[in-house]
Amino acid sequence: VITLLAGGTGAAKLVDGLVQETDSAGLTVICNTGDDINLYGLHISPDIDTILYTLARMNDWEKGWGVKGDSFFCLESLKRFGYETWFRIGDRDMATHIHRTLELRRGRTLAEAIDSLRSALGVKARVLPMSNDPVETRVVTPNGDLHFQEFFVREGWKEVVDSVYFRGIDDARPAPGVIAAILESQAVILCPSNPVTSLGPILGVLGIREALRDTCAPVMAISPIVGGAPVSGPAHKLMAAKGWEVSSLGVAKALRDVTDFFVIDTRDQEMAPAISTLGIKVLVTETVMTNGEDRKKLGRSILDILKSEQGI
Amino acid sequence: VITLLAGGTGAAKLVDGLVQETDSAGLTVICNTGDDINLYGLHISPDIDTILYTLARMNDWEKGWGVKGDSFFCLESLKRFGYETWFRIGDRDMATHIHRTLELRRGRTLAEAIDSLRSALGVKARVLPMSNDPVETRVVTPNGDLHFQEFFVREGWKEVVDSVYFRGIDDARPAPGVIAAILESQAVILCPSNPVTSLGPILGVLGIREALRDTCAPVMAISPIVGGAPVSGPAHKLMAAKGWEVSSLGVAKALRDVTDFFVIDTRDQEMAPAISTLGIKVLVTETVMTNGEDRKKLGRSILDILKSEQGI
Repeated sequence: VITLLAGGTGAAKLVDGLVQETDSAGLTVICNTGDDINLYGLHISPDIDTILYTLARMNDWEKGWGVKGDSFFCLESLKRFGYETWFRIGDRDMATHIHRTLELRRGRTLAEAIDSLRSALGVKARVLPMSNDPVETRVVTPNGDLHFQEFFVREGWKEVVDSVYFRGIDDARPAPGVIAAILESQAVILCPSNPVTSLGPILGVLGIREALRDTCAPVMAISPIVGGAPVSGPAHKLMAAKGWEVSSLGVAKALRDVTDFFVIDTRDQEMAPAISTLGIKVLVTETVMTNGEDRKKLGRSILDILKSEQGI
Repeated sequence: VITLLAGGTGAAKLVDGLVQETDSAGLTVICNTGDDINLYGLHISPDIDTILYTLARMNDWEKGWGVKGDSFFCLESLKRFGYETWFRIGDRDMATHIHRTLELRRGRTLAEAIDSLRSALGVKARVLPMSNDPVETRVVTPNGDLHFQEFFVREGWKEVVDSVYFRGIDDARPAPGVIAAILESQAVILCPSNPVTSLGPILGVLGIREALRDTCAPVMAISPIVGGAPVSGPAHKLMAAKGWEVSSLGVAKALRDVTDFFVIDTRDQEMAPAISTLGIKVLVTETVMTNGEDRKKLGRSILDILKSEQGI
């Protein structure tokens, strides 16, 4: 049984790699919900859905989001009614948001709504939101205080980042099962996700950081930074805004209190000694995943490391 | 300025015929909302939308409902989440329901929500709901008390009809502009719509029947029954349940108190004398519309009749 802390793209790649090499029923994925957004009266959970679609083998690897082969007729029609359509919701994807929103309106928790989606999509892994309480990642820029999706999708992360904060984080409690999954797993993996806005909100929920410190399971993190730049997305801008060095070492420093093992790419090999001095065991492998074969290979490497290091 | 009282299919055909022959800006269409239904958390107004789509030249004449060329990917995905999908909402059509529902949730009235749709679709005619208050047409059958759409779409109007009633009709007030449109038009047309469940709810809203009696404008009705059977739909079953004769004469009797002119098909010519004895002037023409040319021809006939009889 392995528990993963996951954001979107990078996490989805690793999850896909793992399920190619192990029984997905043994995985629990705890997802960031700080990216959640309400549009058109619908509750949208982008990171959750990327993980669900990945596990259901229906995600679009080319675009990196949404449902493979989806169309956008509903969205194009919404444009006609004056709505902004920068957040690209496909017709099939729309059904996911309609169902989740209906479940929430019926009084179900976000975790229950997600579990209903999971079950309908035939996904065997457990997929949990970090919290049932609303948390909203805000990015402060010279041009305003933006919802993460406004910064990330609408503005194409071009804005200068002054700071980041998580609205509602102080009142957020972990969703049922989150703490237990961390404490009772054989291993915990922090996915190669943006440490600020993907892992950051998860680690900010009361008790999660403590559970990672307290768990007997080995906690492994995989660096989302290779050669001083993120594999994808704006992690560099967000890390810089936090005053963190944009490197695997910078990520390791940010996660040092919760990490036992740190996996870096072969290209960052020279950083291994510095990371080791933080009291973290460093493992070096190929981490960049550009296709299904790469994903499978990293999944295999991660499982092998866990096996050799911990006999899992 | 002409005001029409409209249901779905038959009304849409006539509306299309009229706009082919006259300026649509001079039309006010008062629509039945007894068929409205909530599905997937969305407020759906089938008759309103059929009229809007007709006026926007985007309706599907082959199917008789929905948006021309629409796809059903969202609906098919909703099926996966366990929803019934007998009410066929296309992807483009879905946007209409999302927008209307959002407007209602923002505190707008149904009439305001519809006007927003109308304006976005570039429709120049006025389209009014009969009422902003909820009215629900119920069809009582040996197998249960059904929402009109359950009877009509889900069961394909196969059930025996014991009776029909309009839930909420006693508390429904006409939408703003409805009474004024009837009183101040140069002519009022009761479209060739089912007299029980299409015109019935409209005529049941407080003050509408009285306004039709009081208006100085000529009120013309067009029979939806030709040769003892409805041109489309279950009007015969519904009329029979009311104890009405299923014929143009039966329709004329049901509408006699509000009708000055009654248009029947040439095939029903022999009923003209009987209808005349009701104190209604009868006009005979080809009324069955199977294509755009037929619709245009009936539109022209109706305009000619109004011109010759009333100098409109």
